[in-house]
Parts: sequence; C-alpha cells; structure tokens
Amino acid sequence: MTARVRLHLDQPLAPGQPLTLDRDQANYLFAVMRLGPGDAILAFNGRDGEWRAEVAEAGKRGGTLVAVEQTRPVRLPPDLWLMFAPIKKARTDFIVEKATELGAARILPVQTDFTNADRIRQDRLQAHAIEATEQCGGTFVPQVDDLLALSRVLADWPAGRRILWCDENLPGPATPLGDLPRGPWAVLIGPEGGFSPAEQTRLRALPMVHPISLGPRILRADTAAVAALTLWQAALGDWR
Amino acid sequence: MTARVRLHLDQPLAPGQPLTLDRDQANYLFAVMRLGPGDAILAFNGRDGEWRAEVAEAGKRGGTLVAVEQTRPVRLPPDLWLMFAPIKKARTDFIVEKATELGAARILPVQTDFTNADRIRQDRLQAHAIEATEQCGGTFVPQVDDLLALSRVLADWPAGRRILWCDENLPGPATPLGDLPRGPWAVLIGPEGGFSPAEQTRLRALPMVHPISLGPRILRADTAAVAALTLWQAALGDWR
Repeated sequence: MTARVRLHLDQPLAPGQPLTLDRDQANYLFAVMRLGPGDAILAFNGRDGEWRAEVAEAGKRGGTLVAVEQTRPVRLPPDLWLMFAPIKKARTDFIVEKATELGAARILPVQTDFTNADRIRQDRLQAHAIEATEQCGGTFVPQVDDLLALSRVLADWPAGRRILWCDENLPGPATPLGDLPRGPWAVLIGPEGGFSPAEQTRLRALPMVHPISLGPRILRADTAAVAALTLWQAALGDWR
Repeated sequence: MTARVRLHLDQPLAPGQPLTLDRDQANYLFAVMRLGPGDAILAFNGRDGEWRAEVAEAGKRGGTLVAVEQTRPVRLPPDLWLMFAPIKKARTDFIVEKATELGAARILPVQTDFTNADRIRQDRLQAHAIEATEQCGGTFVPQVDDLLALSRVLADWPAGRRILWCDENLPGPATPLGDLPRGPWAVLIGPEGGFSPAEQTRLRALPMVHPISLGPRILRADTAAVAALTLWQAALGDWR
C-alpha cells in the first residue's frame, strides 16, 4: 500500500522509533482518513527528512506510529528570508503558504508605517506553514516569527545578509537578479500603499539593501511576494 | 480633489463623452463611496486608457458621468496567454486575479484528463479580471474564455504561438527562459495531479511546446501559475 497521508510530527524520526499521536492527529488519521493498525503514512519533523511510519495502535484520543524507514532526506531551502507587512487575513495566510512552497527558510512579519495590523496570530501562521509543507511534499517547515517593527528588525540586522527590496517607486523593467552576489538574503515586501517617505529614505541609505522593480504594473502585496521569491530562487537560489 | 475610485465602464471614452451608470455602479459610487455631482473618478474601458470623469447626475437607480480628460494611455500587455486547469473555486479566482495583475492578455481555462471541473462560471471569472484591473491601476482587462478541452485547444492551436509547459516531471533546476525566442506565447499549468501519461506524450511531441521546470519543490497549481508568468515576464515580456 502506498502511503498517501503526510503528517508533520515534532518528534525524532529513526528506525523503530515510536511516535505518539495527540487527539487531533489521531482523529485525522483514524476517523477522517480511516487508517488502522498496519497502515502506513509519511511523517516528517523538519529535520530528519521524510519517513514511512506504520500505525501500531489506533485510539479515539491518541495512538502510536512506528517509524520504519526514511523515504527522502531532508531538503533544506536556501538561506532566504521573507519579510512582509501583514495585510488582510486571507492574503497574509496566502503569503505564508506560498513562501513555504517557494522555499523560504524563515518568514518575518514586520510592522511598517503603513501596516494596518498591530498584531498577528503567530501560532495560526506557523500552522499554515506546516500545512503547506504537508501538502506540497516538503521536508522543511520555515519558522514564522512574531510581528516586529521593521525599524527594530533593521536596527538588529545580521551582518552579511542582503535585502532585496521590492520598491514600488522604482520605475522601469524588473531588475535582472543574476548579477547579484549569492549568500544569505531577505526579500522585503511592503504593505498596500507602500513604504512611508521616512522608511524609503532609511532603506535607500542602507548598504545591504538592493532595490528592485517588479515590472510596470502595480502588484498586490501577495503577488509581489510570490513574484520576488520566484525571481530570487531562479537567479540566486536552488531553482538554478 | 484627487479621484481615488477606479471603475471599469464598457463605453467609449473621449472628451465630453457622457457615460451612463447602471444600478450597481450608481449604488457603488453614490451610496457606498458617497460621491455626488462634481466629484471625479477614474474610468477605463480596456481600450481607451484611463480617464478622469466627473459625476453629472447621481440617482438611486442610475446616473451619468462625463469623461473629462485622459489621465493615462492604455497599457496593453505582451501577447501572453495563460492556460490552466480550473481547480477549487477560491484558487481558480486567485489564478484569474494574479494573471490579470501580472499582465496576461488572455486567460483560457482548459479541461484536462485530471481536471475535476466540467464547467466554470465564465461570467464570474471575467468579473474577477475586471475587479483585479480596477484594484491594480490597470487599463487592460484580459479576456477569460469559456472552458474548453485541452485536446481541442491544441488541435486548433494558432500557428506561431509557443507554449511554455510547466512540466512537473522535469527534474532539476528551473530552466532559464532568456534564451527562448520572443513573440506570442502561452503558459500551460496542469491541475493538481499533473497531466495524464497520454497528455504528456502528446505535449512532448508538439514542436511549439517548450517544457520547463519550476524548481525542486512541488508547487500548487496557483503558485505555479504566478511563478511561470513572473519568469516569462522577466525574461521575455514587458518586465525586461
């Protein structure tokens, strides 16, 4: 039988390793997916790759799997962060899902002068990243940070990490990224309405910031996030 | 007063041209946006660019605007089609919205062997394309076709138009598109589950089909559509 169910389990994966299911996981596997003892699923924890695991014990409030063998090694994404200003709920969820699929290693919601949100549900966004990884066959779950002010993030910026700033005010064609140096990067996407004049001045003055244009049309923030991650992956990341 | 409302009106736009509003448009402008005589909006019809128009008469069931002056010329997208297999409603809507923002000229929903949908609401999808154009400052609305079988679309394929086929089975890195010839193109995205073996065989045999990979991760169909349109625009379209 081919295992079709993929499940994120935050437990070590090794041959013979028992895996404990909580109530939600047991409900999903045994009530929704109707699996029983001996049936197999694919499990991953974000570190040890993907494993075939078999149901040992199926209960209503829990259960146990046993990890059998690794089916795929872990695929770590390149060292790419996505910084974005949270927008409406559905589009924020969407950005987290797409950043996970496109291979961002870390997702940083940032508060900007024109951001409406003053808090986010970090736990909900992290769950979205896990679900996207389950759906898309990934073995790595990007960390979703809590909301921080962009000014604070920039003040503590790690040395050596460059920022690809999607600058709406930059006219003209999309900048080819192939000539930019490789290494750690972060894509920065503003909110609807863009960055404030003060933020623009600050970003322009920072030596690690590389402004790019995303073509002649106005893109929504979620579209810009997907487009910028795509261009970075194709030019500098692991789509090369 | 700066006009902040953008409205698609399927009527000729020229200096002094009266524009008739239907009930929905009148309700939106006068009840929702609370505009009145003398207030200005931006109007476009997909052909004549963007125009400043002023309210001449505001009623509950209709109204009249007068076109004053062109504020922007029409920006036609490059000759790029998007063919995609309709998926769940929300993601299909999303694909139409994103294709509009990213500058597709025509959107063709196609039925494939693994497509679940056997019909679409063409009128609803066309309305989505109009709304996306209103929101994103565009002046051109891509046509959304009715659902057709992929086999029929390929049988009637216009000479000289190439197909960028996002082939999930193609291993390895994303194909650089910069070396491909320019001209009319169509991006082809399959449904979840990909193309059937028969479809793959047929696509591989067609001389106008260029298969590409979209990196090492499995992408959802909507993500693949945005990524492929982005790469095409940056390499061969008007983001260059």
